[in-house]
Amino acid sequence: LSKQTDPEKSEIESFFRDLQNSICSSLEKADAKGKFHEDAWQREGGGGGLSRIITNGNIIEKGGVNFSAVFGKPEGHILNLAASHTSEFYATGVSIVIHPNNPWVPIIHMNVRYFELSDGTWWFGGGIDLTPHYIIVEDARFFHEKLKQVCDSHHKDYYTKFKTWADDYFYIPHRKETRGIGGIFFDRITTGEYGSKREIFEFVKSVGLSFAPIYTELMNRNGSKSFTEKEKEWQFVRRGRYAEFNLVYDKGTKFGLETNGRIESILMSLPPHAEWKYNFQPATGSDEEKTLNLLVKGHSWA
Amino acid sequence: LSKQTDPEKSEIESFFRDLQNSICSSLEKADAKGKFHEDAWQREGGGGGLSRIITNGNIIEKGGVNFSAVFGKPEGHILNLAASHTSEFYATGVSIVIHPNNPWVPIIHMNVRYFELSDGTWWFGGGIDLTPHYIIVEDARFFHEKLKQVCDSHHKDYYTKFKTWADDYFYIPHRKETRGIGGIFFDRITTGEYGSKREIFEFVKSVGLSFAPIYTELMNRNGSKSFTEKEKEWQFVRRGRYAEFNLVYDKGTKFGLETNGRIESILMSLPPHAEWKYNFQPATGSDEEKTLNLLVKGHSWA
Repeated sequence: LSKQTDPEKSEIESFFRDLQNSICSSLEKADAKGKFHEDAWQREGGGGGLSRIITNGNIIEKGGVNFSAVFGKPEGHILNLAASHTSEFYATGVSIVIHPNNPWVPIIHMNVRYFELSDGTWWFGGGIDLTPHYIIVEDARFFHEKLKQVCDSHHKDYYTKFKTWADDYFYIPHRKETRGIGGIFFDRITTGEYGSKREIFEFVKSVGLSFAPIYTELMNRNGSKSFTEKEKEWQFVRRGRYAEFNLVYDKGTKFGLETNGRIESILMSLPPHAEWKYNFQPATGSDEEKTLNLLVKGHSWA
Repeated sequence: LSKQTDPEKSEIESFFRDLQNSICSSLEKADAKGKFHEDAWQREGGGGGLSRIITNGNIIEKGGVNFSAVFGKPEGHILNLAASHTSEFYATGVSIVIHPNNPWVPIIHMNVRYFELSDGTWWFGGGIDLTPHYIIVEDARFFHEKLKQVCDSHHKDYYTKFKTWADDYFYIPHRKETRGIGGIFFDRITTGEYGSKREIFEFVKSVGLSFAPIYTELMNRNGSKSFTEKEKEWQFVRRGRYAEFNLVYDKGTKFGLETNGRIESILMSLPPHAEWKYNFQPATGSDEEKTLNLLVKGHSWA
């Protein structure tokens, strides 16, 4: 039945809640030490969320897997999205950022979200992107190929379209660098170009469900590699760039700060520890330089 | 003569250039180890600057004392300030941020600047504010009393007015905290309310010249205090807040990023090393909590 009828918000919310559970289980298992701590929070205007934070694991130094489902009268930024007669909005989603301890394990971010207004407007958004401190070419290819498989199983154009969208979105103009090697990103996709609501939801489900197998594979591949002081320093510099992107450009962060969201859930994305060195330039021919040279838009990985 | 006639931009620029020199000398002397490294840079549209960076001193871990004098056709943000017939802008100033190693020495920021347009419009802006990791009440009083003396010697209303302006400006709304204990801040002050151009320039000079005696006194008082791991951690958390303010709210940083300024000079303000801990709460009755409780607008220090 659920394959044929359009999903209601209750079905979407349930899926996201289950997704949070299954991802947390998979990450705890792969880390084999860190355990998630949960904070439930309520939103004054309606709804709330469950923030789950893991710290000081074997591999994960700091990570958050957040679920929320909020509703109420449009206010702040949401007002711009709604027609004047719209009386209610509803938004639910899962948002993840993982900062590993080992510089050879990449930072990862995933978000899947659904938004609707009482006038009947609705859309989905989301994406997964990877920020390796050091780009390992075979891992980068693995990551993009997995995302391409997810996309291709829904529509032949999705990977190219959403990969380009990620390149454009996860970009730090003042550094003239991409944040990492991108991935896929999409926002406000609704019926028409993207099929029925059911079809779009099935795509978003596939994206959400791909997170755990992809990231635990990267944890397993790299989590026990040895690393040097110098590699750790480079990780701190890259985390500084991550903080720059999130505080200056990230729309989710801006939205959260401007709409008085729960600050500790919004800023769980910030690295546990970051450094800013004046005019840091990697040595010619170094691994650091090789990584920097690959932080460009339009690189083809899959 | 210079007391009677209005200052020209050449006189203002010379003063700022000399101010950079004298402040760098005073800081090197007080630090007794760190030396400034200079990078000269050119701006494509006209002018340029001298960035001076000091790292790994006895007291100063990372600091920048930047001078710039730029001119050219209004572009980007500057266009909003200029009438359509305005053909040229000119801006010069000195900008300073010092991050000390010892958590008992405060972070300090100072900026003095002059701006003019070819249509005859001009203004000064600037200020000094202090961000102690731990608020030492007698140091906070010393700091504000010194600024009050500087202000009072020019106008009886300046301290109250510019202190309130600093409280409002150096505020982190999403944390509901001031960045530090404030100081003075003023922007776009021009003739009329604030006296002649000469009088305003003399006030800005006094502000600039007060920086070195005030901050070296705080370095001398606290630079050789011992500190613990826990105090160092708190310093890193406070530096995280500093980075949040500068990347999300600071107008100088925004202006620099949006107008494609020299990125390493703009972001020299970021701390050498910062931390973000999830939902960090200082213990009841601790020094950390006492400091947090004083990070509010409207506290009277002088």
